[in-house]
Amino acid sequence: MKEIQFTCPAPLAASDRVLLAHGGGGKLTQQLIEKVFLPAFRSPALEARHDGGVVQAGGVRLAMTTDAYVVHPLFFPGGSIGELAVYGTVNDLAMCGARPLYLTAAFILEEGLPMETLRRVTEAAAEAARRAGVMLVAGDTKVVDKGKGDGLFVATAGVGSIEASNSIGPASVQPGDVILLSGDLGAHGVAILSVREGLEFESPILSDTAPLWEPVEALLQAGVEIHCLRDLTRGGLASALNEIASARGVGMRIEEALIPVSEPVRGACEILGLDPLYVANEGRFAAFVPASQAGAALEAMRRVTVSSGAVAIGEVTPEPPGVVTLRSRIGGSRVVDMLSGEQLPRIC
Amino acid sequence: MKEIQFTCPAPLAASDRVLLAHGGGGKLTQQLIEKVFLPAFRSPALEARHDGGVVQAGGVRLAMTTDAYVVHPLFFPGGSIGELAVYGTVNDLAMCGARPLYLTAAFILEEGLPMETLRRVTEAAAEAARRAGVMLVAGDTKVVDKGKGDGLFVATAGVGSIEASNSIGPASVQPGDVILLSGDLGAHGVAILSVREGLEFESPILSDTAPLWEPVEALLQAGVEIHCLRDLTRGGLASALNEIASARGVGMRIEEALIPVSEPVRGACEILGLDPLYVANEGRFAAFVPASQAGAALEAMRRVTVSSGAVAIGEVTPEPPGVVTLRSRIGGSRVVDMLSGEQLPRIC
Repeated sequence: MKEIQFTCPAPLAASDRVLLAHGGGGKLTQQLIEKVFLPAFRSPALEARHDGGVVQAGGVRLAMTTDAYVVHPLFFPGGSIGELAVYGTVNDLAMCGARPLYLTAAFILEEGLPMETLRRVTEAAAEAARRAGVMLVAGDTKVVDKGKGDGLFVATAGVGSIEASNSIGPASVQPGDVILLSGDLGAHGVAILSVREGLEFESPILSDTAPLWEPVEALLQAGVEIHCLRDLTRGGLASALNEIASARGVGMRIEEALIPVSEPVRGACEILGLDPLYVANEGRFAAFVPASQAGAALEAMRRVTVSSGAVAIGEVTPEPPGVVTLRSRIGGSRVVDMLSGEQLPRIC
Repeated sequence: MKEIQFTCPAPLAASDRVLLAHGGGGKLTQQLIEKVFLPAFRSPALEARHDGGVVQAGGVRLAMTTDAYVVHPLFFPGGSIGELAVYGTVNDLAMCGARPLYLTAAFILEEGLPMETLRRVTEAAAEAARRAGVMLVAGDTKVVDKGKGDGLFVATAGVGSIEASNSIGPASVQPGDVILLSGDLGAHGVAILSVREGLEFESPILSDTAPLWEPVEALLQAGVEIHCLRDLTRGGLASALNEIASARGVGMRIEEALIPVSEPVRGACEILGLDPLYVANEGRFAAFVPASQAGAALEAMRRVTVSSGAVAIGEVTPEPPGVVTLRSRIGGSRVVDMLSGEQLPRIC
């Protein structure tokens, strides 16, 4: 007679499987980087925890970066995966103080994708590359069986030449630095979600997707000593500030009343239950500059269309390390944590 | 009364939808490049139709390349998607005569992927990077919903410094050049297919996945004037030779009896109905060199383990343009065309 066995299957710990939130840019993404990627690939460029790696080639300082794009839907008000794939990578280079020069693109297509869709995405990407002044120099296409992909994914990588003389990155941030924000928050995330949820607004909310080298170049030309730059993609402003505060071991204090959010975006966020501080942007960045140069920096940024709404929103404090505090409109203070879980999967 | 309409739906032309063969490295891949990507992204680097783009940055000549990897299964005899993703990109740089320096990796994970799988792939990629002497300097991870991906895809991009003094690429190929092959064909394709089909051989056939900069460096150090290099991945030797013959407008003549295929691979190809000339390799390349330097080139290649089986297999002819001819063992001649359709989807 066969022995009967009673087994009680232990529930899988969250970290045994990949969750959507591992790609959300918040806490689980950080854990994945710290527990899987960094231990395997130790390199000074990775350990700087910046938007791109800074490398040397033949005596020239270059920035190099990559991003995969899985946004759903492929087309949304104000753009498509084609613009995102170019501007996203261009912007990561710009955030290193590097002039974007060259791009590569690797497409993963699902069998059955209409050729017309591929053509539209490709043309959007090519137009975006022209606008951003970068050249596509290599590409690849793979096709996976129907049902094993989702239409079209693309990964781009970029190389840029570093034009900043000082080192731009979390390590250069100093207590006393002023935190500048290049414009209003949340349009990209709300544009994506409005399509997914079938919401219609009186005037459609367009994604803010845009290239950001121009305002960075303006800052450099104005002689501003930029300490750190970060574009506010997945996880939004809140996650970006937390990443830098935690990497540098400083505190940050920001003022809710100073953070611009357009009325339509604010309204949509209320309906959708989103906090604009965590919503993804694709054409907004934060800059950390010495207090003495904040005025000149704002002036330089405001001269460029994409950052014409630039404002100062707060400052870097010595304490408490790794903590971002928000002073609310009614005067109270609360800690703004890194995004935990996943607010909006497949936003970029 | 409603008018009755008789409509006869026209069948979709093959080019209206993406087919698996568009990713197979053969005719449809070439069509996709010519009809969709090149018209959108015109750039001299792309138009050279080589394995990577050659660019200038601060007076330094760099090669830049990218590939997406969608191989199925993720692990196979002799390697995994981790090694492929590193060596595949490293080899495209080597084929430009460039020493591979830096890599980026963008992962697209399917929700629910076991974290252990990701860890094993990451460790394989990190070990491969160490072996190939390249540093991973930037990465990204996106997660797609369960059922919208297939476990794990990865796209890598690479930058290398060009060490060849002359221009390596299809444009440099000359009638009279000798075609060298770095070793026996077909092991990677057969290794993948044996897992998919559940075939067991007396001794398992291992993928040939390996980094190829070492033999290229050996050629350069031996002072060989390399005209063109091409690794024999998707579409195999036949497609690679056809691409170059067609890009340069020359003919090629190769000898079947001179092309090494191991006995186990030959046997497996017979069972599986594959032609080894079209089977993908991940650690083999063809080199085009002046006839006067073929001896020195073979000697240099044979000193390196990965290309110890190097042989001369034929030559470049002025006519007929774009046509590759094979002289068979029994003395007849046949045209070896580019792969049409898809022999083995998702081989890399």
